[in-house]
Amino acid sequence: MLMRQLDSQQTGFDQMLDELTAWEDELDLAVNDTVRRVLGDISSRGDAALLEYTAQFDQLEVASAADLEVDQQRLRQALESITAEHRDALEQAAERIREYHQHQLQESWQYRDAAGNLLGQQISPLQCAGIYVPGGKASYPSSVLMNAIPAQVAGVEQIIMAVPSPRGALNDLVLAAAAIAGVDRVFTIGGAQAVAALAYGTETVPAVDKIVGPGNIYVATAKRMVFGRVGIDMIAGPSEILVICDGSTNPDWVAMDLFSQAEHDENAQAILLCPDEQYLSQVAASINRLLPEMERADIIRASLEGRGAMIRTRDLADAVAISNRLAPEHLELSVQDPEQLLPEIRHAGAIFMGPYTSESLGDYCAGPNHVLPTSRSSRFFSPLGVYDFQKRSSVIMCSEEGVQQLGKVASVLARGESLTAHARSAEMRLRD
Amino acid sequence: MLMRQLDSQQTGFDQMLDELTAWEDELDLAVNDTVRRVLGDISSRGDAALLEYTAQFDQLEVASAADLEVDQQRLRQALESITAEHRDALEQAAERIREYHQHQLQESWQYRDAAGNLLGQQISPLQCAGIYVPGGKASYPSSVLMNAIPAQVAGVEQIIMAVPSPRGALNDLVLAAAAIAGVDRVFTIGGAQAVAALAYGTETVPAVDKIVGPGNIYVATAKRMVFGRVGIDMIAGPSEILVICDGSTNPDWVAMDLFSQAEHDENAQAILLCPDEQYLSQVAASINRLLPEMERADIIRASLEGRGAMIRTRDLADAVAISNRLAPEHLELSVQDPEQLLPEIRHAGAIFMGPYTSESLGDYCAGPNHVLPTSRSSRFFSPLGVYDFQKRSSVIMCSEEGVQQLGKVASVLARGESLTAHARSAEMRLRD
Repeated sequence: MLMRQLDSQQTGFDQMLDELTAWEDELDLAVNDTVRRVLGDISSRGDAALLEYTAQFDQLEVASAADLEVDQQRLRQALESITAEHRDALEQAAERIREYHQHQLQESWQYRDAAGNLLGQQISPLQCAGIYVPGGKASYPSSVLMNAIPAQVAGVEQIIMAVPSPRGALNDLVLAAAAIAGVDRVFTIGGAQAVAALAYGTETVPAVDKIVGPGNIYVATAKRMVFGRVGIDMIAGPSEILVICDGSTNPDWVAMDLFSQAEHDENAQAILLCPDEQYLSQVAASINRLLPEMERADIIRASLEGRGAMIRTRDLADAVAISNRLAPEHLELSVQDPEQLLPEIRHAGAIFMGPYTSESLGDYCAGPNHVLPTSRSSRFFSPLGVYDFQKRSSVIMCSEEGVQQLGKVASVLARGESLTAHARSAEMRLRD
Repeated sequence: MLMRQLDSQQTGFDQMLDELTAWEDELDLAVNDTVRRVLGDISSRGDAALLEYTAQFDQLEVASAADLEVDQQRLRQALESITAEHRDALEQAAERIREYHQHQLQESWQYRDAAGNLLGQQISPLQCAGIYVPGGKASYPSSVLMNAIPAQVAGVEQIIMAVPSPRGALNDLVLAAAAIAGVDRVFTIGGAQAVAALAYGTETVPAVDKIVGPGNIYVATAKRMVFGRVGIDMIAGPSEILVICDGSTNPDWVAMDLFSQAEHDENAQAILLCPDEQYLSQVAASINRLLPEMERADIIRASLEGRGAMIRTRDLADAVAISNRLAPEHLELSVQDPEQLLPEIRHAGAIFMGPYTSESLGDYCAGPNHVLPTSRSSRFFSPLGVYDFQKRSSVIMCSEEGVQQLGKVASVLARGESLTAHARSAEMRLRD
């Protein structure tokens, strides 16, 4: 068997599950030190340091920092140069992603209380957002759409994209996606130095208000360190899928869904839960049969052997309980009546319901975002969304009448905290 | 003059303003190392380490970790023991805070596209939230209300409060506020060790999903380090107020509003913007007259001298432009027609409109939250709110019909990214 076989009723299951899913994003002190140095250098020396690190880490040597920018004409050129099929697919995906994300727009609101005080919240877009798009080994045009479109829907004025281009290699699909998504400026920078440039700004790269998008350990560490100076979205770990089956879905489909997660990288995690032992054997057979034909068979095999599992559960409710415990990034409810299970799902980045909804549809074009919380963080993080690019200001306008009540309460509480200037500033507004 | 006097039209003003408002939350390597050690210890040794650090940092020695918990009976006892005036004020404030925050509740939504695909977002509360309430030097019952009530409104099942109690001193107002706000469990722990206990869990303290609330540099550093394992709200710097005046508000009121910020600590920042030079002199006179009577005169003086400023602006539009540049935590629009200025405000944690709305009303009882983004971070952070205690899962259910279109788009894009398992998992669902 390629994937380990577990039974939720066996002795020691809970501990086995803990061990299987444990992912320590080790505090790597060497990485920390490197990133701290990069941040310090970019912060103090700007473009000069950015050029050095880009030459060192990306083997990209340019005469001046301006050469790190890819202009709008080059983006349009990329859009013209890709095949009609690719362009059409990117545009259809962008259209659907835009439509979905428009549902996330939040509106300002206000109300008046009985005393005539006005209370509310003013919601406004971020002014400038930085999106980080991985390059190099894997180039993902879909990530450009998923990061940029929510920012655009929110009304962000300037969307700045950073994408490393090792040895100067540019990916036309990525640039075309940037053109379609309305990215304002593109810089071929990556790693901690890109995060630093976006956070502090250099002579050439503008400082942004928030940095979103996944990256490697250097990018993740840099994002964590600049958090507070700028906003960030989340800290990404390896990708995961958890499939709950009732045994009614074509086993080949489920096998391929597990592969589609496993092919990302050796640390990706694919887990299948099903109460039907015979069905699990069928999926195992599909895996054995289909794996040899896969282009990325080695990665898939390493992922499934190292971190994958098929778990026989007592029933579907047991499967849902295990899923809630793992709070998976991607959850497929590959069952005949997924709507019945949906309200029981407490934690998941994205929920794919029914046999037809493969995770890959969500990855590219169904509409929802594919930047999702990993490593159990869907307990508190949400998918990347328009709300990541909007922020709120509280609004309060007290009437002369209203302050007569509020001022007394504030005065008592402020004096209880020994903050007498607070108390007196409220008391001064009271009529005698 | 106690506060420095600037003019927005003077040469070098922009740089002066930058220097005045600069706040480097210095990467303090010593603090970093200490916090890293505390996190490691609590994570590996749990209660035993928690007891040691609590004895060391808070001079609180107890026999077992269970003694660090304050039970519900003790909370109720505190509620009974405080004066009727205090209890009434806390309950009125809680009521108003609850009413305001109910407006922030977000609802799940769904729609079907033309092909019958179901798309949406399922919104659910966090299961377990940790709130950190500073203790020691200053005890703030209002912070208990401001942190716990949004969590309660969101529907969080377990609200765990950490409040340091140096040498075992407990503040009855803080405990009473916890009773009123519906806090489930209270632990007398603080500092990095409290953050670590909430993030990793110990034998006694449950691991939470998110940690919110302000604290000192150790707390802030610990929160940044555990971010990703748990959610956190924001990184707090010193408190700030920016007052925009048109010269129509009683100068004593404005002077006291500036004091109310400055009394928090020497690093707090109070800035007044006004186009009317004569009015600025009146406020300066009020400051000189009122300061000697203040209980916390030394702190106020240090804050105003060190970081305060009165800035004469060209006009109100100029004042708003400066405010947008500083993105203040608290912004008072102490003008006759604040509603006209409101749409021009791009960045602010909370906006207090008109002469009657002193910041102190918002700090305690107007309704909005007083946990607000500082140090220009209102460019991307929002006030603490119900949304901090809710998270979202994307929902996708494709129909057999829908997958015929989506599957083709996904296939093209996946192959463009060389992710062929993704492509095939979509293709398998297509009719021939």
